Amino acid sequence: MNVIESGTVTSPAGFRAAALAAHIKYANRLDLAVIVSDRDCAAAGVFTQNQVAAAPVLVDKETLAKGNGRIRAIIANAGNANASTGKPGLKNARDTQQIAAASLGCTPEQVLILSTGVIGVQLPMNKLQAGIETAANQHSPDNGLAAAQAIMTTDTHPKHLAVQVELPGGVVTIGGMAKGSGMIHPNMATMLGVVTTDALVAPELLQGMLGTAVNASFNRISVDGDTSTNDTVLLLANGASGVPVNDAASVKAFQTTLTDFCIQLAQMIVRDGEGASKFVEIQVTSAKNSSDAHAIAATITTSPLVKTAFAGSDANWGRILAAAGRAGVTFDQNLVELWIGINTPNELQLVAQGTPTNYQEADAARIFAQPTFKIRLDLGIGTASDMMWTSDLTHEYVSINADYRT
Amino acid sequence: MNVIESGTVTSPAGFRAAALAAHIKYANRLDLAVIVSDRDCAAAGVFTQNQVAAAPVLVDKETLAKGNGRIRAIIANAGNANASTGKPGLKNARDTQQIAAASLGCTPEQVLILSTGVIGVQLPMNKLQAGIETAANQHSPDNGLAAAQAIMTTDTHPKHLAVQVELPGGVVTIGGMAKGSGMIHPNMATMLGVVTTDALVAPELLQGMLGTAVNASFNRISVDGDTSTNDTVLLLANGASGVPVNDAASVKAFQTTLTDFCIQLAQMIVRDGEGASKFVEIQVTSAKNSSDAHAIAATITTSPLVKTAFAGSDANWGRILAAAGRAGVTFDQNLVELWIGINTPNELQLVAQGTPTNYQEADAARIFAQPTFKIRLDLGIGTASDMMWTSDLTHEYVSINADYRT
Repeated sequence: MNVIESGTVTSPAGFRAAALAAHIKYANRLDLAVIVSDRDCAAAGVFTQNQVAAAPVLVDKETLAKGNGRIRAIIANAGNANASTGKPGLKNARDTQQIAAASLGCTPEQVLILSTGVIGVQLPMNKLQAGIETAANQHSPDNGLAAAQAIMTTDTHPKHLAVQVELPGGVVTIGGMAKGSGMIHPNMATMLGVVTTDALVAPELLQGMLGTAVNASFNRISVDGDTSTNDTVLLLANGASGVPVNDAASVKAFQTTLTDFCIQLAQMIVRDGEGASKFVEIQVTSAKNSSDAHAIAATITTSPLVKTAFAGSDANWGRILAAAGRAGVTFDQNLVELWIGINTPNELQLVAQGTPTNYQEADAARIFAQPTFKIRLDLGIGTASDMMWTSDLTHEYVSINADYRT
Repeated sequence: MNVIESGTVTSPAGFRAAALAAHIKYANRLDLAVIVSDRDCAAAGVFTQNQVAAAPVLVDKETLAKGNGRIRAIIANAGNANASTGKPGLKNARDTQQIAAASLGCTPEQVLILSTGVIGVQLPMNKLQAGIETAANQHSPDNGLAAAQAIMTTDTHPKHLAVQVELPGGVVTIGGMAKGSGMIHPNMATMLGVVTTDALVAPELLQGMLGTAVNASFNRISVDGDTSTNDTVLLLANGASGVPVNDAASVKAFQTTLTDFCIQLAQMIVRDGEGASKFVEIQVTSAKNSSDAHAIAATITTSPLVKTAFAGSDANWGRILAAAGRAGVTFDQNLVELWIGINTPNELQLVAQGTPTNYQEADAARIFAQPTFKIRLDLGIGTASDMMWTSDLTHEYVSINADYRT
């Protein structure tokens, strides 16, 4: 897999983008993105499992169920999530499809939509309509970066990536963008993510491949444990490369690249989590089964006490064990082992058979002071494992969220 | 029920206490408390369900199973949790019982122990022994407040209470103390709580009554969602009043008072939660069943985004709905209603049938700016309900926990 420098959603052949300031909430920044394919796309989507799913999530699910294989465009806005907006919100989402279809010369069923921002406020449809109509005349292969900027909320920088991979039939390109920052604890999907490819993939294959990739990437990150109402990852494959993904070898190669690609995008979200100053990988090993391992990893990554210890570079590992112990999983605390700084020359074992080792506090503190480090909790029971990536809980997180709206 | 001014664990007849600075971790503050009854007590305990239960929790469970009805003393220390300390920690806990028994003239099986503080550090047994031996000569009915001070960690003030209630057979007194502050999200018990009474109650009755009271009080609070390794509530009944709790009328009256008593102690913990500036009651009503209602209430009270909105006095109710939606409970977002400031003249409905109402933002902000307010989320499905009490997530919480140990 070959990373394209400054690659974006428009790096794959046949994709164009536009971005502009539609003034949906912000005074003067990009907040509307349009992604267009010059031919019909197979599409796949993975969506939030939050019961309070936003209107665009409901509409995209309908749209994919109805007319997959013919998707032409994605309309994405920041500043307003169109969530908890009831029937008027649902109508606004459908109207957005109509407006986009009229502007772009396709049908509403060929348009997917994404929204992110404040919950519980109706979309300003006049501004959105004016923005979409203008953007429809501006899309070009050069606007991939601007599109990634237009979906940011509290993100401090745009997240985008493109790679090339050689399949048996030739080279294909995968491009993508994502936004994250807060309300990040995906359950089957996360935040907004758009992945494009010029590979030729049948719609019925694409959904499974996206699911596999998301499970290993966006479903393994947590900033604050809050699963969003709008979590969506969309994958469009327009086939413009002419290179098919249709046999065991090409499926395997494409899947591997797609998964790696999504892991990189997902990690960008954690590294830019609201107020984040640390990036920590939590591994749980030797569990009875993978769901136990995942439950413990998820509880550790959402513990305020663990995450403030990360922020303070305090190797207060008792909080890690305490979080593991409340994960709803049965284990024997006398078998537990804990390592920090793993995969580095400074790897340090803090707990052996449930008892603190004679490690030096300064050595542990040095590892916790790194901007990136890995922790491994071994349960000593079985052979299953899981991992998650998380950030720390800082003053900055509180500052950002104590007055997000004002 | 009649509140005794400045009442403590020694307000009930026959209980005495001692407290001193044993230098377990802190340089110069009370950190060791001894509670003694002048006669055998029926005892009940409710303990953490954390898999990484601390040594004192394991030892107290054994002790209560072995020789209930004969408890004489509780030894409590702050500064060291004796959790994740392996076999040496377990030995230290049993040695503490031995030391106390020798000093107080009873058997080890008549001593319960409590520890709170840092996890993963062995108890300094020499200091503890010296402290217990000194304290054994100093206990008096006047030291109830000092005992409550001695179990504090990041608490900003001691939590204690005593009440009197008239039962059919006469007046009994209930006294208590608790400590909380961080790692507060009880699962069957919370933090350290000690409740004493001079009522005459059989051991086999007492456990059920404590369970009922804890379920309505300590199990309904959350500061940060982190369930402690040491959560313990102990109830000692020494019968010194001669007033029996043994028939329907006396059991009912005593239970009601005990539950109210525990609710007041539990609410003190939330009000003094680490960094807390707000006290918020979350009610979930019209749920399908009470476990659904509880799951949603618990998810709302642990959402960092909800709690930072409380801190910022930002009536960002979308976060409340988003948290409810990820609680693992199925509901129809179109039936949801949300009120804030309930039980006050300023009660305000923000959401009706899943759609924002035309409320004034200033009215909502005014309610969120109060130090205490109540929120009600109605699911519109059934008749079950639940409630929890929580604090906000502030800069101060991060400051306290980013360097708790240093």
